[in-house]
Amino acid sequence: MLKLPHSLQRLINELNRLPGIGPKTAQRLAFYLLKKDNIDISNLSSAIANIKQGIVFCSVCGLMSESDPCNIDKDPKRDHSVVCVVEETLDAQALDKTGEYNGVFHILGGVLNPLEGIGPEQLSIQKLVDRIKNHESGIKEIIIATNPSLEGETTAMHLAKLIRGINQEITKSGNQEIKVSRIARGLPMGGDLEYADDITLMRALEGRREY
Amino acid sequence: MLKLPHSLQRLINELNRLPGIGPKTAQRLAFYLLKKDNIDISNLSSAIANIKQGIVFCSVCGLMSESDPCNIDKDPKRDHSVVCVVEETLDAQALDKTGEYNGVFHILGGVLNPLEGIGPEQLSIQKLVDRIKNHESGIKEIIIATNPSLEGETTAMHLAKLIRGINQEITKSGNQEIKVSRIARGLPMGGDLEYADDITLMRALEGRREY
Repeated sequence: MLKLPHSLQRLINELNRLPGIGPKTAQRLAFYLLKKDNIDISNLSSAIANIKQGIVFCSVCGLMSESDPCNIDKDPKRDHSVVCVVEETLDAQALDKTGEYNGVFHILGGVLNPLEGIGPEQLSIQKLVDRIKNHESGIKEIIIATNPSLEGETTAMHLAKLIRGINQEITKSGNQEIKVSRIARGLPMGGDLEYADDITLMRALEGRREY
Repeated sequence: MLKLPHSLQRLINELNRLPGIGPKTAQRLAFYLLKKDNIDISNLSSAIANIKQGIVFCSVCGLMSESDPCNIDKDPKRDHSVVCVVEETLDAQALDKTGEYNGVFHILGGVLNPLEGIGPEQLSIQKLVDRIKNHESGIKEIIIATNPSLEGETTAMHLAKLIRGINQEITKSGNQEIKVSRIARGLPMGGDLEYADDITLMRALEGRREY
């Protein structure tokens, strides 16, 4: 039997363990790297080895950052009264990149998923509640931007219910309610009605707005 | 602007340089690694760093190997009179894995590609000629198994012509000619006539065999 050299086979096996990388892609990548200069190889290798270096989680919003509090929470130009709740740092980055959002974020660290044993305690939900209740934070609006998946919607409803509870307390004490909204779901730009799934079409109809 | 931590962004950039890995996949992989144990991370990192360790090229056939001559060329159970000419080590491995081939290999190291400056001198072609002409090697048959691409076909034709030349010398000296064949091209298993391209169909017709 023709056996590949051990070092090569080992790398193929390691690459194959990454999500979305099958045996063929792993082979292709390993042979690609084999032909590369030692500098390129050591760059990639050390980038992987040092990935966790200098990464902290912002104690205010949970964003992955190099400082605590993160740049967003430290920024006086940001509107700290609006908090957008997202699942992960990448979601926050995607929203921020649009340039349309100038508020701050709150990272849940995932979504409710009872089948995988992820309940409210596993997520940064109590921290969000504390943040909202804390008068010093001055939060006036919450935008729930979890993903439009089954779990994301469930989590969004759970959060909305929690905030309604907080609002009842707030109104009793005579203060102003916190606005809660959910990002719009509907047809994506460039999407095609013909190929859209039923739920997307349902949401698009529900969420229609008058001209 | 929300900026990802430097170490994370650096890894995303490095991964993004790999073939077939776009910015989104690079992000996904980087975040996946970020959540992994340090052991998993250092395993991958060191597998990359050590990829070239202990790899030699067989001086007989050019296979990537851990010994010289390689396991295939050292194996007395192999038929050393049949040589299958392939582009790369992976091609040899693919053929060997079928279990149907018991001969030895010759790795060209690529294909003729004048546009990219790859001529016969850049490939292991002279070595193949020497190997065939050398009586001690006892070669009786050559199977040309370059890829069925434009370059692969050109290279195959070039090799066939070279071997015909050698055969003329051989017959003059009264010895037996070397058999040359090209692996069959046609419809792959599970393929669909309807979706096959013209050249594949042409080859499938040309290569038809009587029942």
